[in-house]
Amino acid sequence: MARVALGLAYDGTPWRGWQTQAGGQTVQDVLEGSLARFLARPAATVCAGRTDTRVHALAQVVHLDTDAVRRDESWVRGLNALLPDSIAVQWAKPVPESFHARFGATARTYVYVVRNHRVRSPLTHGKVGWVYHALDLGLMRDAAARLVGEHDFSSFRSSECQAASPVRTLQALDIVRRGDYFLFTFRANAFLHHMVRNLMGVLLYVGQGRKPPGWADELLAVRDRKMAAPTFSPDGLYLTHVRYPPQFGLPIMDTASMLASHTGLAL
Amino acid sequence: MARVALGLAYDGTPWRGWQTQAGGQTVQDVLEGSLARFLARPAATVCAGRTDTRVHALAQVVHLDTDAVRRDESWVRGLNALLPDSIAVQWAKPVPESFHARFGATARTYVYVVRNHRVRSPLTHGKVGWVYHALDLGLMRDAAARLVGEHDFSSFRSSECQAASPVRTLQALDIVRRGDYFLFTFRANAFLHHMVRNLMGVLLYVGQGRKPPGWADELLAVRDRKMAAPTFSPDGLYLTHVRYPPQFGLPIMDTASMLASHTGLAL
Repeated sequence: MARVALGLAYDGTPWRGWQTQAGGQTVQDVLEGSLARFLARPAATVCAGRTDTRVHALAQVVHLDTDAVRRDESWVRGLNALLPDSIAVQWAKPVPESFHARFGATARTYVYVVRNHRVRSPLTHGKVGWVYHALDLGLMRDAAARLVGEHDFSSFRSSECQAASPVRTLQALDIVRRGDYFLFTFRANAFLHHMVRNLMGVLLYVGQGRKPPGWADELLAVRDRKMAAPTFSPDGLYLTHVRYPPQFGLPIMDTASMLASHTGLAL
Repeated sequence: MARVALGLAYDGTPWRGWQTQAGGQTVQDVLEGSLARFLARPAATVCAGRTDTRVHALAQVVHLDTDAVRRDESWVRGLNALLPDSIAVQWAKPVPESFHARFGATARTYVYVVRNHRVRSPLTHGKVGWVYHALDLGLMRDAAARLVGEHDFSSFRSSECQAASPVRTLQALDIVRRGDYFLFTFRANAFLHHMVRNLMGVLLYVGQGRKPPGWADELLAVRDRKMAAPTFSPDGLYLTHVRYPPQFGLPIMDTASMLASHTGLAL
């Protein structure tokens, strides 16, 4: 058996998230179905970040073990011929058994894209969150600075979250404006369930002036999900980067390059 | 009766083009259905550019005559609450009877967006054309310069085209590269059926080195659709601007602003 890593991009809109479920309609179900046809035998996959229903990925990383031998280029072309339009392998690379897509990842980056405009755009539907009221960049950056660091993120954790600890290290939370768009970049060692969408809910309340930036401190201290803003829509959320030790030499590009290549947006 | 102009954006993917058809599933059918509910009476519409199946619009202009009186803001909000996610009114404005969305338009601009990458992107599916082989910007610009001006465009005209004359004035054909994307801007007084997609087919043959730039001259001279390249996919085609005499004071933005606002791409 040999281990292979795959880079995967997908439009999350038609799928019930990454993880296999009874009833199917998940990215993992579809990928494993295509792998079974491509390899003529079943293959189980492990991913870096188990994205939720409707969440997109530009740079999901997956590994699998197989005794089938294929050229790197053949993995990409062969699987993409079998996968639906909404999923595509971007690269493939043999890795040693010491590589693990989930446990070997040292950081994940998500970008949330919001369009701030008084009228909805049909062209961005399902791909970009929409906020009607004007957003204030300075207020949101003030709140974001309070959230960076190692914290107990209980106020930003879904009631369904199964993580052993609510403590995570939010390494970066950067916000930029590009015309009608606001791009929010979140980097952490790992994220709790719904953590990015719950942080977005709070940042957008602050950006609209519904709460002051200091609300972020209060929410960290109170450790109560019910006190924070509603979970924001999954539409504009993208997994853009997963970091691994450099020894594996994976062809993973930075977040700005991935976003530019797959969406045209400049970070 | 009073005349009202509407600015319309739509994702063309789910629709069989603008123009009403038996069997429905066109943008005009859906818009007129929503208008009938909004106004509680039927209303016929006339548009600036009858887009084909799967072609998108950022700035379609439509007029209708009605004895219903609504505030400009009410047209936008009321219709958008009734329209599907893939269609949205962007603005509304009362116009004099001398305004005609189709016959009053003095120029139309379309932008074609191509992603030039060895691997397909699920995130751009249906919204951007895909070219696998590397494109040469200089060669395509050379061919484009030969196509600008007043010409008989018979080689670029669908066999179903019903226009009285094959002569059109292509006022501009500009090509820029933005990372993995090439943006092709076409401006003309009016276009023949499939003219932009047929011009794209030829430009992309030249860009891939399959034909020299001078092929554009030969095709203009031969006036034979069968000699040119296949009609390129509708996926990346956007109606981005319609020009009217300034006296009507319509809130129409330039192509670059519309593209940036609805796609994030910088022209």
